Formats: sequence, C-alpha cells, structure tokens
Amino acid sequence: MSKSEIASGGIGNEPRLSRASVARFSLYLRHLERFERERVRNVSSSMLGEALGITDAQVRKDLAYLGNLGQPGIGYPTQDLIAALRNRLGVDRQWACVVVGAGNLARALLRYKGFEKHGFRFVALFDSDADKIGKMVEGLQVLPIQNLKETVGATGATLAVLAVPAEAAQPVADAVVEAGIKGILNFAPIMPRLPAGVSLIGVDLAIQLEQLAFLVHLSQTESKLDPR
Amino acid sequence: MSKSEIASGGIGNEPRLSRASVARFSLYLRHLERFERERVRNVSSSMLGEALGITDAQVRKDLAYLGNLGQPGIGYPTQDLIAALRNRLGVDRQWACVVVGAGNLARALLRYKGFEKHGFRFVALFDSDADKIGKMVEGLQVLPIQNLKETVGATGATLAVLAVPAEAAQPVADAVVEAGIKGILNFAPIMPRLPAGVSLIGVDLAIQLEQLAFLVHLSQTESKLDPR
Repeated sequence: MSKSEIASGGIGNEPRLSRASVARFSLYLRHLERFERERVRNVSSSMLGEALGITDAQVRKDLAYLGNLGQPGIGYPTQDLIAALRNRLGVDRQWACVVVGAGNLARALLRYKGFEKHGFRFVALFDSDADKIGKMVEGLQVLPIQNLKETVGATGATLAVLAVPAEAAQPVADAVVEAGIKGILNFAPIMPRLPAGVSLIGVDLAIQLEQLAFLVHLSQTESKLDPR
Repeated sequence: MSKSEIASGGIGNEPRLSRASVARFSLYLRHLERFERERVRNVSSSMLGEALGITDAQVRKDLAYLGNLGQPGIGYPTQDLIAALRNRLGVDRQWACVVVGAGNLARALLRYKGFEKHGFRFVALFDSDADKIGKMVEGLQVLPIQNLKETVGATGATLAVLAVPAEAAQPVADAVVEAGIKGILNFAPIMPRLPAGVSLIGVDLAIQLEQLAFLVHLSQTESKLDPR
C-alpha cells in the first residue's frame, strides 16, 4: 500500500494525500478528542507527534492538507482541527450501517460503544440461519437476508459489515451491493470481488496475527525492526 | 506507514523489505493455499497479481525477497513458495497466544477456525471480572489476570490478544509484558505504550469503519479513488 495515493481534491499540481496520512487522520482525531475532553484549547504539532510516535514535521505535513489551521507559536485550535478532520474524513455526518452475520463478532461490534460516538449507527442485522431470524441481538432483531434491499432502502444505509464465514463472503457481498451498499467492512477471511464504485476494507484477523508473529519473529532473529 | 521499511536480513546494500510487501506476503500465502487445495503445482506472477489486484512486476519484486524460486515460463512451484513464505513470516512454527478479556470478541476469536490452521493456538483466556473467572468459554476456563505470569511461563505463550475496554488497555498491556509476552494484538480503542522489544499491532474497529466511510465519501464527492 506504500505507493497508493489519494487525490486530495483539486486538479493538476495539488498535493496528493497518501493512504498512510489518511490512516493517521483517524489517529489525530482520537487524540484531539482526548485533548478536547481535557479542555486543551490549542495543540502543537509536537503534542500530536509525540502521541502518534511520529515527527512534528510529518504532523505539520499531514495537517497542511486541511488548510492553514496552525499558527506558529500557538498551534492548532483543538476544536477547529477536530471539525476539519471530521469534515475531511466524512464523519461529520451519520453513517447508517447494516451487519450481516449474527454471531459473536456481530455481538461484540453491536455492543461496542465507540462506533455511535464516531457517527456510525447500526440499523439492521441479517442472517441466513432460520434459527437466528427473529431473535433479538443487542437491541436489533435478526432479519432474513432476503430483506436486505428493502431495509437498505428504508434506512438509507450506505455501509455493511460482513461478519460471515469465508464461503458466505462473496454471495453476501453480491447481495449487499445489489441492495445499494457503497462500502463494505469485511471480516471474512476471503476478499470478495466488488464492482467499481464500491469500497472495501478487509479485517482479516488471522493476517493481523500473522503480521504480529512476523514482527516478533523478526525482532527475535534479527533485532532490526522499525516499530512503525 | 508508507515510509517504514524492514531490514530484510543481511547488512549493507541488501534490498529492504517494505511493510506493504510483508502485508502482501500474508495475502500471497492465502491465495497459494487455495491454489494448493486446487492442486495447482506451479503459479505464475500474473495469477498472483490478478488475485491481489496488483501488477505482475510487483509480485515478482515481492517474491524476489524469498530467493530465486521462480522460473521463466514455468512460474513458482506452489508448495516451495508456500514453505518459503511461511518460513519468512515465522509461521512455520506454532505460536501460543493468550487472550485477555472474556467478552463477545474473545468468543468470536476463539471460535474462528482460521487461526489454528495458520499456526496460532489460543492456550489461555483471562479476565478481571470475578463473575467470569472459572467459567468455560469455547473450551478454555477463564483465569484471573493474576495468573498471567505463571500461565505464560507454563505454556510458552509469546503473543497476547487484548480484547478489553479502552481503560483497561494500558494496565493489561503492562501486565502481559511483565509476564513475558513479546507481541500484542490490540483491539482496545487506545494504543498502549510498550517497552522496546515488544511488538504491537492495533485493530481499532472504529478506525477501520472511519477509513471505509472516508473511501465512500471520497468516491461520492470526488470519484478519484485509488482502490488499493
């Protein structure tokens, strides 16, 4: 992913935003929300750099994509920077999400309080298992997968979380796309193929663990690890 | 993360392996395991490139770090490439893992069959909640967190999965490091600070959803998205 860049808006010679910067936007936002709770009115690039373990220069470069918010000697106004980041990330609005697969992972996701706070609202839960349909799970009634299109239409859901086994990933992805979903967060250990215009982020937990094992393996065998 | 590189082994002028290549190693491995199940004896860089949605040249560059396994016109022997990738990733051995936090996420992780297949074995589950201690969860008895050091010593566990709330992340991370754990997969929405020599991979699910929302937002507002 090191080479992928995302157009930052304008045309031609505008600076381009890297995927890594976008990933850091979310982290800046988390730390800024904490600073705001602690009533810190202005934050410096070094405060954010220290929090993320990166250089001040990298922070200033990332935040320059948001406009000229920083002032030398004063820093960035915390609230303005939060608003600019939320706007840039598109999380200054509500995102309705459906979840497909009513297992333990879905339970954990529906219980997690952090999503609502960041503008994500789980509006419906689907499963194909007749034994689960109709049951209540964390405040949502499990709906049959055949209701997807109707529910997505009625709720205006844009995002879907796929918490299904590998073999269900492709048919379920096809079904949510057919229902009008524009972005998929996929927990299945297989990446479904999607038509252009539908975004996908995969969270393969075995891969995360494998990458962790690699980092430990590397530090045990070579001790030459860049921690970031 | 776009600039981080990991030393690939030797000293001096050896090529350096990027974090992005390492992330792809896991993806190559997944597809190769599928090809092996389908009894495909040799795979070409274009087969792997197509599977991952990247160029053949990038595949050849990544796989060159594993040695000279490919042959022009024939490709890579599937089994040899799998063995080389497993060796490079450090997953040609068993990794014993402990899980801290006996909630729904832990249940989902313990139930997921994909880990064992890739060499990860969950050997113990801990919680600080007196109501949970002693109960059986997916075949593991919930142990008090005070038993961490003893259990890590007895099982030889190297990795820990933190499935705890934000406020518990730092004290639990301190406790697992004190117990001898060398790598942490963190699901808490706060990144704990760790001493040098301990590796950390964070899976912040709200951030994953936020990044997905950003991709959808970008494609809705600008339609200028690099899908990778």
